[in-house]
Amino acid sequence: MNFSSKLIEEGVNAFAGLPGIGKKTALRLVLHLINQPTEVSEQFGEAIVKMRRNIRQCSKCYNLSDEPVCNICSDQRRDQSLICIVENIRDVMAIEETSQYRGLYHVLGGIISPIEGVGPADLTIDQLVQRVEDQQVKEVIMAISPTIEGDTTIFYISKKLASYDVKVSTIARGVSFGGELEYADELTLGRSIIARMPYKTKEDQNG
Amino acid sequence: MNFSSKLIEEGVNAFAGLPGIGKKTALRLVLHLINQPTEVSEQFGEAIVKMRRNIRQCSKCYNLSDEPVCNICSDQRRDQSLICIVENIRDVMAIEETSQYRGLYHVLGGIISPIEGVGPADLTIDQLVQRVEDQQVKEVIMAISPTIEGDTTIFYISKKLASYDVKVSTIARGVSFGGELEYADELTLGRSIIARMPYKTKEDQNG
Repeated sequence: MNFSSKLIEEGVNAFAGLPGIGKKTALRLVLHLINQPTEVSEQFGEAIVKMRRNIRQCSKCYNLSDEPVCNICSDQRRDQSLICIVENIRDVMAIEETSQYRGLYHVLGGIISPIEGVGPADLTIDQLVQRVEDQQVKEVIMAISPTIEGDTTIFYISKKLASYDVKVSTIARGVSFGGELEYADELTLGRSIIARMPYKTKEDQNG
Repeated sequence: MNFSSKLIEEGVNAFAGLPGIGKKTALRLVLHLINQPTEVSEQFGEAIVKMRRNIRQCSKCYNLSDEPVCNICSDQRRDQSLICIVENIRDVMAIEETSQYRGLYHVLGGIISPIEGVGPADLTIDQLVQRVEDQQVKEVIMAISPTIEGDTTIFYISKKLASYDVKVSTIARGVSFGGELEYADELTLGRSIIARMPYKTKEDQNG
């Protein structure tokens, strides 16, 4: 691109350094900001810098947090004996969005992946074992993607927790609700037959 | 979205305030910045703020510029007697990209559009007339989109310049190079027949 202005070029390069933003999109964003009052850009820039400077990891669950202990861990109304293990903050947000879970989380910071050079020591697995040891944790729920790496991670963690008196479970896997059988992939469909569940009516479930 | 962190929410809202960026994309950008060292976010924020604070309009052509006079206007190698009239900086960049034009520009800052409440006084038309009056301008080229508003703007400017000894031209309109006739729109194809040009071989053009 032929920028007649060095300042615009720098602004475009700043945006284009972000993932998924090309030069054309970056230029559109830059010209939008130039058309707005200076304060808009100042507030934008300050919000980003302030966020990055002050964000930290929760010392308990390793979720991203504003405070030393995140507001999920410090919420006494949540079930402190239940820990849901997830890969990252996105998964925490997805589960929180369902409003179905009232326990705590433990954010691994990734999954074991020899190809990407991520080993157990790069994740917060030891800290999880420590939490299980120190606190009265009754159940650990593995909410990890059903991939080869995910399954490896679940296997590793379950071995680590085997000597503790804690129940280990994984989230249910099967055909999506509302999904059509014919479009489900073979593995999911096959596994969902093997892992079939006793039929319950709505009344059974509620009672 | 259910953000457990106020800081992340503010970061997401900052990005999501930009055109074409939704909350999901904003979250992806925010998590990317959090995964990078703090300096990356600081440099990003500073680049945007610095750009917005220092950018200004060229006092001659009203293009966006780093200096009081932009580097196109201050380039003495360019033909000072030729002014190309465009709507905005995007059009300047598009024409500069072609490397076919070595004159100056005049950025209108929009086009006359009664629907959007843009009248001649909102554009830099008076300043253009002043430039034509003050300087030895031989030709003014209208490089404005061929829409109803664009044609209105061209008509208005040509009337304003009628009393001056200056040639007024518009960029050629017709079927795109490499475009298939059958896919050209009716208006363009019809007009390109009416505005047909004498056939020239490559040799004629070069000589």
